[in-house]
Amino acid sequence: MTTSTTADRAAPSIYDRDLDRNPANYQPLTPLSYLDRAARVFPDHTAIIHGPLRRSYSELDARCRRLGAALAARGIGRGDTVAVLLANTPEMIECHYGVPMTGAVLNTLNTRLDAAALAFCLDHGEARVLITDREFSKIVAPALAQARVKPLVIDVDDPEFTGPGEAVGSLGYEALLAEGDPAWDWAMPGDEWDAISLNYTSGTTGDPKGVVYHHRGAALLCLGNVITGALGQHPVYLWTLPMFHCNGWCFCWTLSVVAGTHVCLRQVRAGALYQALAEHGVTHLCGAPIVMQLLLNASNAERRPLPHRVAFLTAAAPPPQAVLGAMGAAGFDVTHLYGLTETYGPAVVNAWHRDWDALDADARAEKMARQGVRYPVLEGFDIRDPETCESVPADGETMGEAMFRGNVVMRGYLKNPEATQAAFKGGWFRSGDLGVKHPDGYIQLKDRSKDIIISGGENISSIEVEDALFRHPAVSAAAVVARPDAKWGETPMAFVELKPGATVEADALIAWCRERLAGYKLPRHIVFGELPKTSTGKVQKYLLRERAKTE
Amino acid sequence: MTTSTTADRAAPSIYDRDLDRNPANYQPLTPLSYLDRAARVFPDHTAIIHGPLRRSYSELDARCRRLGAALAARGIGRGDTVAVLLANTPEMIECHYGVPMTGAVLNTLNTRLDAAALAFCLDHGEARVLITDREFSKIVAPALAQARVKPLVIDVDDPEFTGPGEAVGSLGYEALLAEGDPAWDWAMPGDEWDAISLNYTSGTTGDPKGVVYHHRGAALLCLGNVITGALGQHPVYLWTLPMFHCNGWCFCWTLSVVAGTHVCLRQVRAGALYQALAEHGVTHLCGAPIVMQLLLNASNAERRPLPHRVAFLTAAAPPPQAVLGAMGAAGFDVTHLYGLTETYGPAVVNAWHRDWDALDADARAEKMARQGVRYPVLEGFDIRDPETCESVPADGETMGEAMFRGNVVMRGYLKNPEATQAAFKGGWFRSGDLGVKHPDGYIQLKDRSKDIIISGGENISSIEVEDALFRHPAVSAAAVVARPDAKWGETPMAFVELKPGATVEADALIAWCRERLAGYKLPRHIVFGELPKTSTGKVQKYLLRERAKTE
Repeated sequence: MTTSTTADRAAPSIYDRDLDRNPANYQPLTPLSYLDRAARVFPDHTAIIHGPLRRSYSELDARCRRLGAALAARGIGRGDTVAVLLANTPEMIECHYGVPMTGAVLNTLNTRLDAAALAFCLDHGEARVLITDREFSKIVAPALAQARVKPLVIDVDDPEFTGPGEAVGSLGYEALLAEGDPAWDWAMPGDEWDAISLNYTSGTTGDPKGVVYHHRGAALLCLGNVITGALGQHPVYLWTLPMFHCNGWCFCWTLSVVAGTHVCLRQVRAGALYQALAEHGVTHLCGAPIVMQLLLNASNAERRPLPHRVAFLTAAAPPPQAVLGAMGAAGFDVTHLYGLTETYGPAVVNAWHRDWDALDADARAEKMARQGVRYPVLEGFDIRDPETCESVPADGETMGEAMFRGNVVMRGYLKNPEATQAAFKGGWFRSGDLGVKHPDGYIQLKDRSKDIIISGGENISSIEVEDALFRHPAVSAAAVVARPDAKWGETPMAFVELKPGATVEADALIAWCRERLAGYKLPRHIVFGELPKTSTGKVQKYLLRERAKTE
Repeated sequence: MTTSTTADRAAPSIYDRDLDRNPANYQPLTPLSYLDRAARVFPDHTAIIHGPLRRSYSELDARCRRLGAALAARGIGRGDTVAVLLANTPEMIECHYGVPMTGAVLNTLNTRLDAAALAFCLDHGEARVLITDREFSKIVAPALAQARVKPLVIDVDDPEFTGPGEAVGSLGYEALLAEGDPAWDWAMPGDEWDAISLNYTSGTTGDPKGVVYHHRGAALLCLGNVITGALGQHPVYLWTLPMFHCNGWCFCWTLSVVAGTHVCLRQVRAGALYQALAEHGVTHLCGAPIVMQLLLNASNAERRPLPHRVAFLTAAAPPPQAVLGAMGAAGFDVTHLYGLTETYGPAVVNAWHRDWDALDADARAEKMARQGVRYPVLEGFDIRDPETCESVPADGETMGEAMFRGNVVMRGYLKNPEATQAAFKGGWFRSGDLGVKHPDGYIQLKDRSKDIIISGGENISSIEVEDALFRHPAVSAAAVVARPDAKWGETPMAFVELKPGATVEADALIAWCRERLAGYKLPRHIVFGELPKTSTGKVQKYLLRERAKTE
């Protein structure tokens, strides 16, 4: 199909007369309507579990309305930014509804940012309100001191948090809610294109960019999540993914479509995960690969039997064969998703073919390693030449850039028209990820464009080298970056994390790779030690790249 | 929530700058994109089963592109009407994609219409093409003779049809497809508000009204069907519902979202149904209550063991307790849906609560008898006062009109602005169905507004009287209408169909009702015999109302 919005128009037809939009046949798409429905249809169903706390959908809905009404009474409305610095708590879910009910935009801040970065986000987003958890007060206080904006600061005091931290604001969250009417009749957004949330990318260079989501995209991704994740009615969903990350891949809103139960968890630890899985009958969770490692490396004391098979939706890096096999044996069915902050989180799925089940373990892992195909609610996903924007041949070899097109692509970067235009050049969103298209149309990433290593004029995929390293039984994680080289321009340098108690020499690892890789792709240097990771479990390659220049 | 699109606008905010629509982040919603995806992701999966015929998704997609390309080459484009008079065949599914790929509008004609009604629809819709099955040639020839329009007539000669009938057109369907390119690069609709299909209501009075669907609504109802019907990936769907009826409740398009298999069937007979269920591992079917009767009344020779439990989605009339129990025992899980042609078919579901399973059979049937709540993709469903348009109290007693609001409500009636304005008066679509809202918010219909019986100033719900009659073990179907009465204005008159071999006297039936109904609601006259039904299994009350005047 030609995904163009500039189809030539014929003369007006009989269908162009007297068949216009009106409130009866046109309403803005918004995920807010899903909560309204869940609260009316399943008012007593448990919406939230958090420690000993249980909240039903009618209670959740009433608290969201209170929040929205209180904010609105304090002058918050369409186009205002409400920033939040919250852990995976009930308050964070409430903010996902209560804030946009006012027409305002929810800016979920990354809880691992430093004070300067937080101050930048508050200023750039022009935050009028900041809702913050006591745990983060140490970083919030200096951030507020540095920031030019002076938001109303609201403190959340979560009983599940027993660590240090002081109130930094002028008002408690519960006191704010007490100001609001639990039956507040909020208005649908005036336009489904209106912004619903603002997510700053944890950029590795330069200032963070503010990714703007709209109501239409969020509403559609929710439906896509339900269908792609096979959530069914009343799923029990365990939070490991930070809710500040792409609005928890939009699962903060998604669960309302099917009246699911949010199981909150402040800290992702193996014992707590297994306990929640067993106690609450968890059916689904999303998580970075690091969460799989956590589950698989749990001690016997931490483990609990699963109530039934559990769906595990993962992204960020393709699950290696050994991990997949171990996860399956442990009772988890893994689905591989792919997306970026700019695509509301996952918009691509490794859609599994039933006949792949009959393949041997290696071949299955090879299939699973591919990022795959578009969600039903994404209109286009392709590998295209970054220069010409032409689709590359589906030969599994020709590299190009992964590009997205459709309704679950961001509106753009806030107050950054240059970056927005660059990202949308040619009518496709350019992910910056490089990959190939296989003959069956499935897409496989080979690298971030900035992660590619160019050695003697040859492109080397850092992912390919990492895969080879990862297959070694002693290796638990590996990251490969370019090391400046006088002769070759760049050569691959590997940073390797070993499994507890395992040992292997650098020479032995290189020999292992030689059996699996072409000579020019072999890592010339190997450094052992723990890898620096972001709060979402991604390896921070920019730090390694710095180290590669000096080590 | 206030479902209003006229929210007051504040001054432009930072989110109103440089964050506009472009082809990368905005694409028209259309169900056509689902087929494109299914054909790319699951090209070899069986899309269609019809007798010995099997077609994969890539074959279906190629044939749809051929059809679209051939029609486009013959000048068919945006806003043109392509009418079809087809049984539940593969060609009918192809038309659902190939026709809108050109920008044209698919008008699926009811195969039970007479020549005059067909001629009316062809003329009113200004059909430029008519694609017709040989079975209907006897009625098509006179319809074409009567019609003022002179469409290009294409003949479908389905090998599964072995009865009489001649080609009436100038071109065979396969010859038309041969003119088209199987790789035709069709264009997305210029606007998601563009018409995709035209469905004439089988109105009981006056001329049929042409209900116009748009791409946006069809795309959204598909997602709603997948979620509400719990279709999962790769459902096997048996066609009993006519595809001409609300585009088969949009299931002609819905199955592409999840790469499901269409099992076509020209004629709905018990033996063929059980054979298809068993042979193809059917997982889901939609059908009128009459299909349940057919399945339950099948002879032992016709029955075949089911491969697994089968989901049965029904609408039109709430399933009586006895039928529900029998269906469950026979291996079917019944879901009760509700909607109208004007709402793309089903837009309301009797969303089941798990704890209702523990109720006794009577109480369960009472819950199941309610039409229920909105689909997640419908924004509003309510019982409102037809005069004031105010929501009625949720007391289970106050009658009002069932009203819809949202994106799966039609654009309006073609070339009929008066009827359109009347239907949308007050910003809600007025269904003409009367009902109540229970304290839990579930809606239950009590009658069509024109079916209500007013006796001595009291409103009598014909459904309530029918329910009482239906519970009698000898009764297989019952319809109650108003009979003009000199003293009371109107009195209830019952038309009753008995089970094969069963007998009961009118007096005994009235006595039976007396134990269950208030005196003024008792039918004063009972007539035994087969009830007249429409092609979709609905009792034709207007015929009975005529008879009630004279009998």
